[in-house]
Amino acid sequence: MGWQRGTDGPPCPGGHALRGENQMKTIAAVVDDIYEDLELWYPRLRLEEEGWKVIVAGPAAGKTYAGKHGYPCRTDAAFSDLRASDFDGLLVPGGFAPDKMRRDTHVLGLTREIAGSGKLVAFICHAGWVLISAGVLKGKRATSTVGIRDDMVNAGALWEDSPLVVDGNLVSSRTPADLPVFARGMVDWLLSH
Amino acid sequence: MGWQRGTDGPPCPGGHALRGENQMKTIAAVVDDIYEDLELWYPRLRLEEEGWKVIVAGPAAGKTYAGKHGYPCRTDAAFSDLRASDFDGLLVPGGFAPDKMRRDTHVLGLTREIAGSGKLVAFICHAGWVLISAGVLKGKRATSTVGIRDDMVNAGALWEDSPLVVDGNLVSSRTPADLPVFARGMVDWLLSH
Repeated sequence: MGWQRGTDGPPCPGGHALRGENQMKTIAAVVDDIYEDLELWYPRLRLEEEGWKVIVAGPAAGKTYAGKHGYPCRTDAAFSDLRASDFDGLLVPGGFAPDKMRRDTHVLGLTREIAGSGKLVAFICHAGWVLISAGVLKGKRATSTVGIRDDMVNAGALWEDSPLVVDGNLVSSRTPADLPVFARGMVDWLLSH
Repeated sequence: MGWQRGTDGPPCPGGHALRGENQMKTIAAVVDDIYEDLELWYPRLRLEEEGWKVIVAGPAAGKTYAGKHGYPCRTDAAFSDLRASDFDGLLVPGGFAPDKMRRDTHVLGLTREIAGSGKLVAFICHAGWVLISAGVLKGKRATSTVGIRDDMVNAGALWEDSPLVVDGNLVSSRTPADLPVFARGMVDWLLSH
């Protein structure tokens, strides 16, 4: 795939197979400036805690993007480097980064392909915007920050006010307050698929 | 204890007993300005993912402290509100907050009491400074950021360059890169005690 891992924040502790019995999984995460810091980092570190690999992609590879509160994240890859077939799932964090990422054709193509192939697509808070623009929400149960509820409903989602909504391969939560159940939902989904 | 839970960042999702079989645990965390954002938040959310309660204390209750990278954390309690007997363990995050917290007699007393009663004391990165000033490291295996290795050794610790060091009830890690093993180490310790 050609990327080099590198982070300004915590680098990947890859290689710590903390649960030896787990099958290796590789998850793509997408990022851009003003991402919600914990909505990227909590699930990322949690998946790494399982011994799995998380590849973080942004507009450019090897560049550092700043969270809404300032936490830096250096990308392993560019959006255009990612191939859906290399991944077991996709994580889309919130913040205002989704407002930018939804304009990127590679992000939208990746989201559509991963969603369409029945692999995990996990999204939280404002991340629903990316799924709206990828056109994958019609008739699907999902949640988001209440701020984009109307956009979700207008895109055909069956919106629920719940900490964790799982509809097939779509796993969604509302806000950073839901992160513990969101990450556990991702882990449980990946362990059972 | 008199505190009111309240956070500017993610509030406690308390009540989600994600693993119904877990016994309730209550863990104290200490914070001050320039705390390392993820070294507080990753273990905090991870413990909450287990269905446990984390009470975050700072110099004052109900005040917001800013992480090294800017992530806000609103305290549930003041250092002086905490009683060791109310907790199953203590989390001390790193960053430069420990340089301030080691001067607080309540933080030092709490650390000594929790360490002395055989309950969990988990510390990462620069947090070792607090344990040094509490005088609880002599003859104990521990790790820290390499930046304070000399201070740890001079305080009598048997310093190791390892992602996770567990000596009795002292659980330590080096940097944010160790967070997945650090948090898993805390969870495993609490589940088995």
